[in-house]
Amino acid sequence: MNRQSTIPLAARMAGIEPFHVMEVQNRAFELEAQGRHIVHMEIGQPDFSAPPQVIEAAVEALRSRPLGYTPALGIAELREEIARFYRERHGVEVPAERIIVTAGASGAFMLSLGALVDPGDEWLMPDPCYPCNRHFVRLFEGCPRALPVDEQQLYQLSAAEVQRNWNKRTRGVLIASPSNPTGTTIPPSELGSIIDWVRSQRGFVIVDEIYLGLNYAGALPTALALDDEIFVVNSFSKYFCMTGWRLGWMVAPARYVREIERLAQNAFICPPAPAQYAALAAFRPDTIALLEERRLEFMRRRDFMLPALRALGFEIPVTPTGAFYIYAGCERFADDSAEFALRLLEQAGVAITPGIDFGSHLARSHVRFAYTRALEGLKEGVARIGRLL
Amino acid sequence: MNRQSTIPLAARMAGIEPFHVMEVQNRAFELEAQGRHIVHMEIGQPDFSAPPQVIEAAVEALRSRPLGYTPALGIAELREEIARFYRERHGVEVPAERIIVTAGASGAFMLSLGALVDPGDEWLMPDPCYPCNRHFVRLFEGCPRALPVDEQQLYQLSAAEVQRNWNKRTRGVLIASPSNPTGTTIPPSELGSIIDWVRSQRGFVIVDEIYLGLNYAGALPTALALDDEIFVVNSFSKYFCMTGWRLGWMVAPARYVREIERLAQNAFICPPAPAQYAALAAFRPDTIALLEERRLEFMRRRDFMLPALRALGFEIPVTPTGAFYIYAGCERFADDSAEFALRLLEQAGVAITPGIDFGSHLARSHVRFAYTRALEGLKEGVARIGRLL
Repeated sequence: MNRQSTIPLAARMAGIEPFHVMEVQNRAFELEAQGRHIVHMEIGQPDFSAPPQVIEAAVEALRSRPLGYTPALGIAELREEIARFYRERHGVEVPAERIIVTAGASGAFMLSLGALVDPGDEWLMPDPCYPCNRHFVRLFEGCPRALPVDEQQLYQLSAAEVQRNWNKRTRGVLIASPSNPTGTTIPPSELGSIIDWVRSQRGFVIVDEIYLGLNYAGALPTALALDDEIFVVNSFSKYFCMTGWRLGWMVAPARYVREIERLAQNAFICPPAPAQYAALAAFRPDTIALLEERRLEFMRRRDFMLPALRALGFEIPVTPTGAFYIYAGCERFADDSAEFALRLLEQAGVAITPGIDFGSHLARSHVRFAYTRALEGLKEGVARIGRLL
Repeated sequence: MNRQSTIPLAARMAGIEPFHVMEVQNRAFELEAQGRHIVHMEIGQPDFSAPPQVIEAAVEALRSRPLGYTPALGIAELREEIARFYRERHGVEVPAERIIVTAGASGAFMLSLGALVDPGDEWLMPDPCYPCNRHFVRLFEGCPRALPVDEQQLYQLSAAEVQRNWNKRTRGVLIASPSNPTGTTIPPSELGSIIDWVRSQRGFVIVDEIYLGLNYAGALPTALALDDEIFVVNSFSKYFCMTGWRLGWMVAPARYVREIERLAQNAFICPPAPAQYAALAAFRPDTIALLEERRLEFMRRRDFMLPALRALGFEIPVTPTGAFYIYAGCERFADDSAEFALRLLEQAGVAITPGIDFGSHLARSHVRFAYTRALEGLKEGVARIGRLL
């Protein structure tokens, strides 16, 4: 029975929480419907739409192709393009055969965890982290175990902690770098040590790199440069600005690809065909040039937001170097970040995400700001918060 | 450990089989690459692409909308259109609030079974049936229990059997009407009795209606006309010819919608946005007129295939009245339908699906023909089979 309802449901549903940000967002839309102007800093998707090259490739495919089922692993051309992207951008050889195109990063988590998580298995992840991670583990009857992480360790897991918390039920580790909600990355040496340990225990490492393209502190290496026997998840949603298209990919160890293909055939049949053909244009040099401009625009926004929020009194001990989030302590203003987020929305017309969406460790004292709005809007938002506080 | 491999995998993976038809198809593609001409009667998707109205609606959306994340349940306009379709085509009132747009029917199975199946729960389904059904139940640690069905009961479950096989671990029933692979429908009175029984046991009924629009024996009622407390799955892939777009929907009992929304937020974020806007054009009268022409074309094909296959000696005791499949006994020609399918491919250049894809009961003595090719090709295929036999 679900704690929230009296209807018959699978027990796992009690562990699957709503996105609290959705409540903030729904209330924001209500206020907008009443004529209020709201500055949205809660939304975790770029305000840019897909690049025009991608859109035109989609139009071309729509008009010239039947767009039936594709292979479950994705069309060969796209898998080749992704392999080329790893080679040219990251200097890493990833054979196309190891690349699995998925229905968003969500599809990649579904397939990897569906193939790997046995009931009762423990999977380690940091707290705070992207909430769906624990829900996916729970979906397959695993036990997500979120380890509290602090600013001293850049809000990322350390090898020492993984080792200390590993027991005979532990089967894997989930890491996101750059991370949502903190925008911090894990040092490659630390990640390497975690991978070494986990592999020595015959466990699994899944690295979420959906924000890898959005970094502001020099080129960020992919975890694939460290090891071939890990699972890496990526997405066309964030850097490539294709959120609603639902397209992502996973790189799996070679010997897992056929197993995951079998699950993909059954669970998805294939990723969306229009998005796959559109994504072929995502790696063109002119497209990448545009996306790099957008990345710099995100950096400009961060460079505005970070000092502005600090000046208001938010605690941001670690400079976020990636994604489009700032994870900020609000203890000076409130005992409960959820109550604070609602107050900001109601009284200042600024929507942000309460920490509770990302775990429990720092949840009550932290909120997440997303800089997925033009600088103008961000300035207005910060000014409003300043007036309220 | 997986029976097929020595790599560490979740135990459930041992129960998730590949589509054997894929092996037939891969071998067919190999032969084609060698210059052989193959008649494809194995493919379970329409040879028609999406209607031009749908394609142009997609182009329009691509050029005018940002196509970011949509609500997890789908855009309101599409849910309204589907509600209108039930009202106007089926004479059934289904409030838009109960309609959940999904990433294909696959997404609908994932969400409904993910929300309902507890580990160890038994779910009943017919054998033969669509193979993914049992795999989805297994994915969530349930126990699929396939009950052998024969031509006497139109290859559909009966209320008596459901009742006889129900035990304290049984939680639900999965029914497809029209069915893949048999093309047969369940009589509404029988379905009504099954629903009554299952509800009296506080169990769940999921009815797969993805072929409901493709029927050739008069209008087929939706199961929603019988009961509000069942789950009904439908798809834009078959009748609407949008296979690769990955769009479907589910109608859930009203009190389940918020629970499923929570799971959808976490597991999918949302169904593909381009497909959702495109599908708004799927219900236009001119689109439906085109789809009805296509339906009649499928009927013409069935009307050719059925007597032609019977004349060759295939056993087809029940006239299939829906979908685009003929489930045929091939005992006269072979002891093993898988071996027979391969022989047909190698020696006659005709690709069909072996019975093993749909269960075990009639698997070795049956094959499935799909009439998803133009009449011309079907005639050639039948002629080739005739020459071989």
